[in-house]
Amino acid sequence: MRTTRAHGEVERMVKSERAGGYKAGKDVEIGKRAFIDSTASIGNNVVIGDGVQLGRNVVIKDNVVIKKNAMIEDNATIGYDHLTKKKKIYEEYPTIIGENALIRTNTVIYKTCKIGKNTWVNHNTILRENTEVGHDSTIGNLVMCEGYTKIGNQVAIHSQSGLGGNMIIEDKVFIATNVVTANGRRPTYLRNMPAIKDKGPIIRYGARIGISVILLPEIEIGREALVASGALVTRDVPPFSIVMGFPAKVVGTVPEEERL
Amino acid sequence: MRTTRAHGEVERMVKSERAGGYKAGKDVEIGKRAFIDSTASIGNNVVIGDGVQLGRNVVIKDNVVIKKNAMIEDNATIGYDHLTKKKKIYEEYPTIIGENALIRTNTVIYKTCKIGKNTWVNHNTILRENTEVGHDSTIGNLVMCEGYTKIGNQVAIHSQSGLGGNMIIEDKVFIATNVVTANGRRPTYLRNMPAIKDKGPIIRYGARIGISVILLPEIEIGREALVASGALVTRDVPPFSIVMGFPAKVVGTVPEEERL
Amino acid sequence: MRTTRAHGEVERMVKSERAGGYKAGKDVEIGKRAFIDSTASIGNNVVIGDGVQLGRNVVIKDNVVIKKNAMIEDNATIGYDHLTKKKKIYEEYPTIIGENALIRTNTVIYKTCKIGKNTWVNHNTILRENTEVGHDSTIGNLVMCEGYTKIGNQVAIHSQSGLGGNMIIEDKVFIATNVVTANGRRPTYLRNMPAIKDKGPIIRYGARIGISVILLPEIEIGREALVASGALVTRDVPPFSIVMGFPAKVVGTVPEEERL
Repeated sequence: MRTTRAHGEVERMVKSERAGGYKAGKDVEIGKRAFIDSTASIGNNVVIGDGVQLGRNVVIKDNVVIKKNAMIEDNATIGYDHLTKKKKIYEEYPTIIGENALIRTNTVIYKTCKIGKNTWVNHNTILRENTEVGHDSTIGNLVMCEGYTKIGNQVAIHSQSGLGGNMIIEDKVFIATNVVTANGRRPTYLRNMPAIKDKGPIIRYGARIGISVILLPEIEIGREALVASGALVTRDVPPFSIVMGFPAKVVGTVPEEERL
Repeated sequence: MRTTRAHGEVERMVKSERAGGYKAGKDVEIGKRAFIDSTASIGNNVVIGDGVQLGRNVVIKDNVVIKKNAMIEDNATIGYDHLTKKKKIYEEYPTIIGENALIRTNTVIYKTCKIGKNTWVNHNTILRENTEVGHDSTIGNLVMCEGYTKIGNQVAIHSQSGLGGNMIIEDKVFIATNVVTANGRRPTYLRNMPAIKDKGPIIRYGARIGISVILLPEIEIGREALVASGALVTRDVPPFSIVMGFPAKVVGTVPEEERL
Repeated sequence: MRTTRAHGEVERMVKSERAGGYKAGKDVEIGKRAFIDSTASIGNNVVIGDGVQLGRNVVIKDNVVIKKNAMIEDNATIGYDHLTKKKKIYEEYPTIIGENALIRTNTVIYKTCKIGKNTWVNHNTILRENTEVGHDSTIGNLVMCEGYTKIGNQVAIHSQSGLGGNMIIEDKVFIATNVVTANGRRPTYLRNMPAIKDKGPIIRYGARIGISVILLPEIEIGREALVASGALVTRDVPPFSIVMGFPAKVVGTVPEEERL
């Protein structure tokens, strides 16, 4: 039996442990009254703001800024950097977690994501690279966001939704549980087809999407439109309209008193 | 570079470490033959029954009772207490994990939940506050339960289902994979609409719900009714009836020999 | 207050800690240049190949082979052995992670699974017992695979899909986000019905399945067929055909220039 261990590697990690117990790299700045659990790990070039809390086994990778009073819960990873497609951009932009933001347990935030002030990202969710979320928004539990997507302010995205890449979600949008969006008309994986620039749907200001709705790529859901639960949306939805069905058709208009 | 650590906080945690390695708060009672991994953490006012097992990095928060021979697997959190809406009730009622229950890896059970005897909650699932599950039931993997919901005995809820809050699920109900339920007729997030008391569907004794079914709010699925896969259920389903389609319509009756 | 700890148990674990910090059982072979985090845990009868990386809190259970240069990320569990149905087979066959494979954070791979060379399994995914995945395939995030399923080479299964047990997925199949498959015509849980051998769908070489598709049990999706997003597939789909709708109907043929 062979039991050669990687002595050098293990030794390096032990050396970088701080007095408080947690591990940290170079150029790490830690604010006042920050609480860092002894099992947390912090990479290089990281700024931890005043009053930030890092829970058990939290991993902060390189080039991350966590602003004041943000809370990163147990087993969350911020600035995850083992990307599928390495691009130079990832070397240049930091990952930013806004002031007073909350990242719940087991959630993974990829490199270059930006999470706005007062925004919550709940349990077991994955936000891939270049996901930008505004302020006062909520991303639910078990959500998958494929990245390259801009999500506005005061947006609610409920649990188990799956957002294909390259989307725009404007302010005050409401997305219910298990909504799924596509970003390619036809799957091209491994195929000899002309490369298409994948593009997900655009969801305009204040639109509301019901549970288990399916949104096809490139369509636009108009301002404050309402999409009924389970609808398959295959084409643009006009502003303030109500659509339902499979495929979805316009069945009415959002009344004045329900508008923002 | 500033590297001020929260010395007081770190010190406090180190002090509370026990001889066995794990951390524990005040008023913690631990039964005979209990196994607690050295990386586990236990809060205040906790009772760990005889023969209970707590895996690696398990976190038991305050006011939790874990009854004998229950097993809490790695990275699970019991009594999670960082709630959206703080109410006084959460201060009063304990979280209870029943005898011989199994909570699998990475699962989060919120404060005030009650899990019955012999019940299993599988991997990466989230049960929010005031979820009560009876005995001999199974909650699958990657399930989201929004809480304020009573789930009966011998119930099977399969993986990736999303249960909106304020539901009743009676004994011997079968819910297949990816079933989603709503609890609000119209999304009211951030809008100036009259406050409605959200109410999810009621699923009566022995009903069976197929994969990817959508249940709208406030409806009742009758005793032992069968809802076919993919159905959109928009109204009450009579007892013993079979429904299917989009929206679902009654297409038959469950034969006598299939009834409980 | 009673505070009896399980002294014997705790002591045993402390004893098995290695110099590098991680825990390991008997008959553990570790290759050259392998990196094992000090918080990882390795069971009995395990082979860790050259250049393998095991992240923080990784748990390798008994009878596991991890081939060279595979990477197991933080909080992943390989060879999970707390099975619902214990069968003798599980004692005999090892769990195998192929050369250069990547298992991302929080993922659980059950006992007897085989993951091929260069295959990736992304975050928070669960592969139950007897799941075999070929080489150069990708399993997305938050995927649930119920096991007893053979998945081919160069297959893409996207995030949040739920694969019922006992399926065959051939080479170069593309499965989009949130696809769910069933493996029983009627739920028989707790009922006095004749035992049926559950059997999921078969998906032939190069078939493409759109987002949120529902596949009923026992059907066959023919070679390179294309199933449109949201379709409910209730019967066999002929090779090279395009189907859509609820239930799905044939609407065309995949053009020659799109075929593999």
